[in-house]
Amino acid sequence: MFLARVTGVVVSTQKAVAMKGHKLLLVEPLRVDPNLRDRLIGTGRSLIAVDPLGAGAGQVILMVQGSSARLMPETDKLPIDAAVIGLVDEVRVGDTIIKMDDSQPS
Amino acid sequence: MFLARVTGVVVSTQKAVAMKGHKLLLVEPLRVDPNLRDRLIGTGRSLIAVDPLGAGAGQVILMVQGSSARLMPETDKLPIDAAVIGLVDEVRVGDTIIKMDDSQPS
Amino acid sequence: MFLARVTGVVVSTQKAVAMKGHKLLLVEPLRVDPNLRDRLIGTGRSLIAVDPLGAGAGQVILMVQGSSARLMPETDKLPIDAAVIGLVDEVRVGDTIIKMDDSQPS
Amino acid sequence: MFLARVTGVVVSTQKAVAMKGHKLLLVEPLRVDPNLRDRLIGTGRSLIAVDPLGAGAGQVILMVQGSSARLMPETDKLPIDAAVIGLVDEVRVGDTIIKMDDSQPS
Amino acid sequence: MFLARVTGVVVSTQKAVAMKGHKLLLVEPLRVDPNLRDRLIGTGRSLIAVDPLGAGAGQVILMVQGSSARLMPETDKLPIDAAVIGLVDEVRVGDTIIKMDDSQPS
Repeated sequence: MFLARVTGVVVSTQKAVAMKGHKLLLVEPLRVDPNLRDRLIGTGRSLIAVDPLGAGAGQVILMVQGSSARLMPETDKLPIDAAVIGLVDEVRVGDTIIKMDDSQPS
Repeated sequence: MFLARVTGVVVSTQKAVAMKGHKLLLVEPLRVDPNLRDRLIGTGRSLIAVDPLGAGAGQVILMVQGSSARLMPETDKLPIDAAVIGLVDEVRVGDTIIKMDDSQPS
Repeated sequence: MFLARVTGVVVSTQKAVAMKGHKLLLVEPLRVDPNLRDRLIGTGRSLIAVDPLGAGAGQVILMVQGSSARLMPETDKLPIDAAVIGLVDEVRVGDTIIKMDDSQPS
Repeated sequence: MFLARVTGVVVSTQKAVAMKGHKLLLVEPLRVDPNLRDRLIGTGRSLIAVDPLGAGAGQVILMVQGSSARLMPETDKLPIDAAVIGLVDEVRVGDTIIKMDDSQPS
Repeated sequence: MFLARVTGVVVSTQKAVAMKGHKLLLVEPLRVDPNLRDRLIGTGRSLIAVDPLGAGAGQVILMVQGSSARLMPETDKLPIDAAVIGLVDEVRVGDTIIKMDDSQPS
């Protein structure tokens, strides 16, 4: 799994039948700043995930990829390879506590 | 999943029996422009996907990879690892709405 | 899936029992030239695939990765993660038709 | 699989029901120093893993990705794609023995 | 699959129960030299694989990743994502035959 920030949504009218009613989040994977290790920084990549947890814009989420994305009751048998499995409150790196609301205005 | 633009098609006469009659799209994965975040830009990569939705040239699609690509009725048991699961109308990044027809002539 | 060129073969006498008799191709993944979009260029990567279709040296093939590589009758239950599922005749990128014999002497 | 160092933990109050009670480790994948081959160095990537083995901060672990992460009794059916499957004592590269406590203060 | 050279071993006393007794090889993925195409060169990456075939230090092996790594009798149901499925004797690239003992002192 990895951390990612919700950066937007994708609107798709024509899609696989099973996908109807499933919100599609646009997210940017994050990583710990390799120098100071005191904040999360974007990787510049763009991925799309199904979100059964209701994450909001700017929120940091925990994302799973592959067949495991189908293992929640809400995602069972969906043709997806990525889903939100947690909303992140804080990340502790060594002695540093990174609160998610601190790091939002990236 | 990720966003990609349909850039062409692949013609293959000799292929796995189960693949007969399945159109093969050539696509280029996209990402949000990391600076202005107001458009999608190409990644330069080239992937091939089966398309049960009838995407046209230049169209932006939502693509799934891995075993999940086999989870649509049209792709059941195919030996594939990538499929189109949605045609994209628009992408909302923060307050910006990216209409797909705006970004097509990349 | 992605396009790749057959660049060689791998000889392995000692291998998993199920692999006996399966030819192992050395392939180089290809991508569309990002500038002129009129030919396929190598990526410099080296992968190995099982080939139930009899691809020859220099030929461009369609390759599948992951568990889907085991979904052909010839590859059922093999401990493999990559297989050839098509021989490529041509690739159409926009209005350009790339014939595979044109692009072979890369 | 690959080697990684435990660099922190992720706190998530709202998460997939099945994930309750499972500790989430923040880890940085490692690789052998390509020059001297006498120590492990960080790759700068940030991944999250479930840990049934109780790894501590700074410890080097063996990590598995994909569906195989669900194949331990403690991770059965979890919607995860990464788990700790071993705590690493030492890595032998050629004639060099890298003790894990030597390489911790990276 | 891909080619890799055995560069070492990983010692782990505390590990998932199913992993007891399984040797863990440290390997470096290889690729064909993109210029002369007459030898294999390292990629600088470090991966860990289970080895049912008894590969020795410096040996070039064929490696499989993902769920397929569990499809040998010796690896059935192990929580692993990588295994050795062949010992490589030689690699033929075009008209060049790369004997594995030639390329060992990388």
